[in-house]
Amino acid sequence: MSTEPEVPANRAPTLTDVAKLAGVSVATASKAINGRDEVKAATRARVLKAAELLSFAPNALARALLGGRTGTVGLLTSDLEGRFSIPILMGAEDAFGAGEVSVFLCDARGDAIREAYHVRALLSRRVDGLIVVGSSTDPRPPLAGAIPVPVVYAYAPSTDPKDISITVDNVGGGRLAVEHLLACGRRNIAHVTGEPGFAAARDRAEGAAAALADAGLAMLGGQPYYGSWDETWGRAAAHIVVEQHPEVDAIFCGSDQIARGVLETLRDLGRDVPHAISVIGFDNWDAIAAHSRPRLTSIDMNLERLGAVAGRRLFAAIDGGDPPTSEQYPGRLVMRDSTAPSS
Amino acid sequence: MSTEPEVPANRAPTLTDVAKLAGVSVATASKAINGRDEVKAATRARVLKAAELLSFAPNALARALLGGRTGTVGLLTSDLEGRFSIPILMGAEDAFGAGEVSVFLCDARGDAIREAYHVRALLSRRVDGLIVVGSSTDPRPPLAGAIPVPVVYAYAPSTDPKDISITVDNVGGGRLAVEHLLACGRRNIAHVTGEPGFAAARDRAEGAAAALADAGLAMLGGQPYYGSWDETWGRAAAHIVVEQHPEVDAIFCGSDQIARGVLETLRDLGRDVPHAISVIGFDNWDAIAAHSRPRLTSIDMNLERLGAVAGRRLFAAIDGGDPPTSEQYPGRLVMRDSTAPSS
Repeated sequence: MSTEPEVPANRAPTLTDVAKLAGVSVATASKAINGRDEVKAATRARVLKAAELLSFAPNALARALLGGRTGTVGLLTSDLEGRFSIPILMGAEDAFGAGEVSVFLCDARGDAIREAYHVRALLSRRVDGLIVVGSSTDPRPPLAGAIPVPVVYAYAPSTDPKDISITVDNVGGGRLAVEHLLACGRRNIAHVTGEPGFAAARDRAEGAAAALADAGLAMLGGQPYYGSWDETWGRAAAHIVVEQHPEVDAIFCGSDQIARGVLETLRDLGRDVPHAISVIGFDNWDAIAAHSRPRLTSIDMNLERLGAVAGRRLFAAIDGGDPPTSEQYPGRLVMRDSTAPSS
Repeated sequence: MSTEPEVPANRAPTLTDVAKLAGVSVATASKAINGRDEVKAATRARVLKAAELLSFAPNALARALLGGRTGTVGLLTSDLEGRFSIPILMGAEDAFGAGEVSVFLCDARGDAIREAYHVRALLSRRVDGLIVVGSSTDPRPPLAGAIPVPVVYAYAPSTDPKDISITVDNVGGGRLAVEHLLACGRRNIAHVTGEPGFAAARDRAEGAAAALADAGLAMLGGQPYYGSWDETWGRAAAHIVVEQHPEVDAIFCGSDQIARGVLETLRDLGRDVPHAISVIGFDNWDAIAAHSRPRLTSIDMNLERLGAVAGRRLFAAIDGGDPPTSEQYPGRLVMRDSTAPSS
């Protein structure tokens, strides 16, 4: 056995390097590292010493080859900003405590070919399972091909009802927002939201309408003001609402960015928020909600909890037993200064 | 050979499963899959058939065990929002074209123990190299322990000058912002920025001061207005600047969020942006810059290019040859409506 490692500094050592350094065959090195009985103790010691000298890290590989969990999960996303997927990633890791599970995030950017490539890369690294995070809450097709590990769909459900999908209850979120406005004594409630092509827009509107109907009320204007998800639409929509319905006393916005625009227009018009008109957003995006004037009350989708549930369901599936079922999770109200009882 | 795969549906098939199904030893299965000569053709065919039946994906593992690139890079970040690391990830992948490289992102959240765990998880998956993305532009200590693959530090440099660090030229970015304001004919330029504890704040201020000095000018007030990185500070700072220096004709802001707050106060005060006072931000964060009133001119840090360079340098290091050196990359000006020549 030579004493100097002979692996070029610029690549990871392989089992072949270990075998060479130990002066044994690759098969013997493999058996020694995997703890098999057919290898003499002295040979095993030599192989392990060589592995140590080379910083060869066989554990996860060896465990994967021998079966059993490797403590790694792949997270496949198309969320270009990471705004939804990073909290879900953190939640999935936290479901097991630090140092128990690593989540590897790959960004498919909404591209099926890229997605298939990342899935192969993750599977060939022996991940225990996959979490697929959609770029919107719209249902998405299941991963293509035969996937030999469990898959949990998070945020966006799979279109296949046999798959496990852990999603936000956007209908419930819309209901929660309007129930808060009703609790503040509001009766003339408008709903300004994003593009109707998004399930998130339709679902939140449905929950809002249901909560209003339960209170014997209807949405101001009879339907949502659909537009885009940004501040520019929020500013324009607030002008329209105030002009068409001067009696408006609350506006539920489908995103914090829309709400931010609504707040700016109401400020320009000299309308008192929260007393004359209360405004509530959706997303609880701190960069927007915590620095608006006034600071914005919002619905938080609890994405970290969504990730934690997805992680637990994934490991339940890996461990066998009863197959987990799809679940929807409610959001929660985060009070700031843009909603208050009518005075 | 049995014809029914016997792997539970809830875990990935292992080499042991393949060997069992093929009726050979694990060592033989390994040799067959790795294309070694010692295995009879009929045996190899049986093993490969079993691997196919089980959807066993040996390629990356086998290639890793045999040496050579695996086409996978680990990206270690502590960027809780993903706002900086996702563009860097996309740039690193794009340096090689889709389907050539998968980047696995792990979030260490600024925690050294979590970072060490993720590094081990990535190394045990045989990544070819690591890109380490800081959560700010402040220098960070190198990864702990012996890392057997090349490492490139991106966004935040390593404190060890022997490491390869690919960073944004924030001094140059500050200079670029002020040179644009000077080109617009501005002479009374204030600088409102974030916390002085951040290298990003100090570096951008240094570049701004240098560009002003080259024009025979000084910063309004003689030094930057340091505060925090958010809109609330931007709103307060604009009041202070306008009160202390009514002659102000331009404000360079250290972030788009600060600039957004500055714009709001100037609007409240009835100051005409861009004609009376021009405002420029930093980050080119679309959600903020594209929806402010007026839309915000900003400095873009070109993070995708930073990621592409980091990816190329990493693979150059993996392939050996001359060791890459540390590099700084300039930002670029993105013109919108908040800057214009003085009328």
